[in-house]
Amino acid sequence: MTSPRKAKRGIPPKSDFNVWYPAIIEIADLVDKRYPIKGMDVWKPYGLSTMNLIDGLARSEMTRTGHQEYNFPLLVPEDLLEKENRLVSKLKAAREAGVDPSELRMDDDNSGFKKEVYWVTRGGENELEVPMFLRPTSETPMYTMFSLWVRSHADLPLKTFQIVNTFRYETKQTRSFIRVREIHFFEAHTVHADEDGANRQIEEDAEMVQRILHDLCLPSIVSKRPVWDTFPGAWFSKAADVVMPNGRTLQVATYHHYRDQWADTFDLSYEAADGQTKLCHQTTFGMSERLLGAVVGMHGDDNGLILPPSVAPFQVILMPVAAHADDSVIPAVEALADELSSAGIRVKIDDRDVRPGVKHYDWEIRGAPIRLELGPRDIAKGKCIISLRTGGKMAPPIDGIASTVSDALDSMADELRLRANRNFEDLVKPLPPLVGEEGNLEFAEQFEKGIVYEVAFDGNDSDAEVLEKLTGMTLLGDCDHSFVEPHVCVITGKSTQRRQYIARMY
Amino acid sequence: MTSPRKAKRGIPPKSDFNVWYPAIIEIADLVDKRYPIKGMDVWKPYGLSTMNLIDGLARSEMTRTGHQEYNFPLLVPEDLLEKENRLVSKLKAAREAGVDPSELRMDDDNSGFKKEVYWVTRGGENELEVPMFLRPTSETPMYTMFSLWVRSHADLPLKTFQIVNTFRYETKQTRSFIRVREIHFFEAHTVHADEDGANRQIEEDAEMVQRILHDLCLPSIVSKRPVWDTFPGAWFSKAADVVMPNGRTLQVATYHHYRDQWADTFDLSYEAADGQTKLCHQTTFGMSERLLGAVVGMHGDDNGLILPPSVAPFQVILMPVAAHADDSVIPAVEALADELSSAGIRVKIDDRDVRPGVKHYDWEIRGAPIRLELGPRDIAKGKCIISLRTGGKMAPPIDGIASTVSDALDSMADELRLRANRNFEDLVKPLPPLVGEEGNLEFAEQFEKGIVYEVAFDGNDSDAEVLEKLTGMTLLGDCDHSFVEPHVCVITGKSTQRRQYIARMY
Repeated sequence: MTSPRKAKRGIPPKSDFNVWYPAIIEIADLVDKRYPIKGMDVWKPYGLSTMNLIDGLARSEMTRTGHQEYNFPLLVPEDLLEKENRLVSKLKAAREAGVDPSELRMDDDNSGFKKEVYWVTRGGENELEVPMFLRPTSETPMYTMFSLWVRSHADLPLKTFQIVNTFRYETKQTRSFIRVREIHFFEAHTVHADEDGANRQIEEDAEMVQRILHDLCLPSIVSKRPVWDTFPGAWFSKAADVVMPNGRTLQVATYHHYRDQWADTFDLSYEAADGQTKLCHQTTFGMSERLLGAVVGMHGDDNGLILPPSVAPFQVILMPVAAHADDSVIPAVEALADELSSAGIRVKIDDRDVRPGVKHYDWEIRGAPIRLELGPRDIAKGKCIISLRTGGKMAPPIDGIASTVSDALDSMADELRLRANRNFEDLVKPLPPLVGEEGNLEFAEQFEKGIVYEVAFDGNDSDAEVLEKLTGMTLLGDCDHSFVEPHVCVITGKSTQRRQYIARMY
Repeated sequence: MTSPRKAKRGIPPKSDFNVWYPAIIEIADLVDKRYPIKGMDVWKPYGLSTMNLIDGLARSEMTRTGHQEYNFPLLVPEDLLEKENRLVSKLKAAREAGVDPSELRMDDDNSGFKKEVYWVTRGGENELEVPMFLRPTSETPMYTMFSLWVRSHADLPLKTFQIVNTFRYETKQTRSFIRVREIHFFEAHTVHADEDGANRQIEEDAEMVQRILHDLCLPSIVSKRPVWDTFPGAWFSKAADVVMPNGRTLQVATYHHYRDQWADTFDLSYEAADGQTKLCHQTTFGMSERLLGAVVGMHGDDNGLILPPSVAPFQVILMPVAAHADDSVIPAVEALADELSSAGIRVKIDDRDVRPGVKHYDWEIRGAPIRLELGPRDIAKGKCIISLRTGGKMAPPIDGIASTVSDALDSMADELRLRANRNFEDLVKPLPPLVGEEGNLEFAEQFEKGIVYEVAFDGNDSDAEVLEKLTGMTLLGDCDHSFVEPHVCVITGKSTQRRQYIARMY
């Protein structure tokens, strides 16, 4: 193990979140940001291993629900993008022609991904005839192939996923895991016979997101994004946002119902049982390394990371004590390690020749859930000493250690959920009545920095613009749980049960 | 499961290898080659899963030997490549200045990777100030970071690896897994205090390659590549080549000893225990999806793939028979599946409502090692029926099935090794004496197409050129096992024990 860069109590306090977050990521050895391209970090073993465990959670959900794993090429020829742009233009034209807004699918100024992608224009010393771009997401490459694969209703549903890196030519400020240019990405794409099939998929997606977030001990706000914030070509988009400790929301998962709009563009149709040719309905589901960003940001403290047991590379660090003075220590520690491993617990023996204090310090920073010490005196007593990263020590008997540890990991996860829920409750509040005049200092002060507001809102695009301008925040969209009692819309004054949130988003 | 495209006995005979190979890859559903960029295939679930298992073999060797997994960015700024090119130019200049040939490291016309890479020149609508290329391999991005990480002897050895896709602007004919433009790649990079440390690493690499090839049931020729075929910047390169059934050799693994040449270029030095600053010594190790190409090509037959048990996604296909007639069949099959899974065997129940013949046919094509049938009559007898993909049927008792299957998988792997060795012996022969005159038909006919020749060769560059021109083949380099008795060099006539091979290489 490389020792974390000596920051000896040099971790900034977490209360100064915007300083703490970028610091802890490097101090805990998750990534190295010194690679000479901004927004492209080097994943170090500890960070990569944590990310792989998060992937494992997603992969197991996908397998449970009958998705199959594929891997599509990184590069996409420009002419395929033209198809996507035609879809966007078509929908834009519909909006301009005054079509029912509920039928609209995208932001006005969205012209596909063209402005956000990296372009490969040369191979060796040759200019390429058709430029290619690095996938920002994989609708285009995938649907080109889906249209070859789907022939009849017997081929449906087609449920696919892949775990790949995607690329965005990001011009905003970059932040590790949160806004990067090479993105560790998780995407599922499904094809269904009809809208109902796609609806059921969206429900399954919602459930998968909640199961994964539960494993990561992260509460979230689930919203149906407003029309103008809907993914290009989608009928509607839903998203899960985590409220970070600085009160900004981080979108960690999205899922989109495409109806048959993409299918129309990509000639994705099938022969139904009755012999008719029908367009398919589609959905996508996306998550990324932002999940790790949320884990780091939500659970860490002034002493470093705290990793949820589900994704900690090492759930238990075994620390032999006074091993040089007593030959029985190392074999006893190894026996404990074997016993814990056999029970499916991820362990690491830290047998470095350094003081126990250094080991405690290093693994505190890295957020290992449990540190377990065993020395000659413990062996004599048939006990060991356990320190939980969330606080507290125990001296349980060595006998039955696997179930002791397993219980401790479970209760640690519960404790993290409790803390995260407390964070949520502290930072999410009902919007106070809008009093005074805009521009007035008193008026602006009503909106505390770092708070996410719950609002009753039933307005249209321009009402939302008013709300966003007044508060300096963004509307996340309709929350899954509407108000039980009628409320008054903060802008229109109409009675409504629509519960929405406004927030400063990452 | 998508049924393989109906090729009903439409598999070309394997004797026509160059037709069989590309056909079987698609028929067995490993990849789809219809993606609109040549040399970039879509990995389908069965192919990806097999590749992941191969990665698993490599990952477990790396872990066993203390390497740690990283992930470096895909894009490399052009100015970093300039460093690499300076290294190449320097060594070229040395050669031109008449330096001892044994000190030379690269082919004369090698000007780094510049001609072989894809260039990203645009981000969105902006021309990039510094163009970036897609990694063809990761010396440049990695060593840039290594020089930040390595400070003192205590940081050494540094043993890293990553599993990523790499990119080559390939102008030759592409072939799935063998010559592609997006390459599923496996690379290890190590840093040592001195040449001895790097030497030991090269020995460890050789051992890892042999262990992995053993698991894949692939014999190989291990050679030290001739100077002109050495990786740019390497002191020497070693490679393992598999002799494919058409007699062409496929390089499936390489490892390079860099001495301190790259370290010099990348300022990679450390403070030794005595306080002196010293240059590091480095090695690399590379493998790729070519391993899967070798597995497909070596073991398959006229009926489809044969996957070695170590990397078969499903080692046993369980086929319920007459399940509609007897309710006890499915539970009995599920119980068998559980028992096999618990023993660490990868199983799949094929409960499709199709005739058993179709199931046998499909899984034969996909090369599943074992098919297991269980019907009411078998249950009554307490037996099941097992068909091995390498041939043969058995009716073992259900009792103790896990160890029966496990033994069957082991002996199947042995059978594959036996067959592969037979292939090797059939295709590798001593070079007959060079009689007659070059250009003469009789002379050319001495060299059978599809044969790899063993030669005694002790010449220099130009002697090798003569040999290669005479035979139309390429010299693989010095084999690890030299001749026990002195032989006569085929070109110089000198006495030598150096055993080399010449072959048509992929």
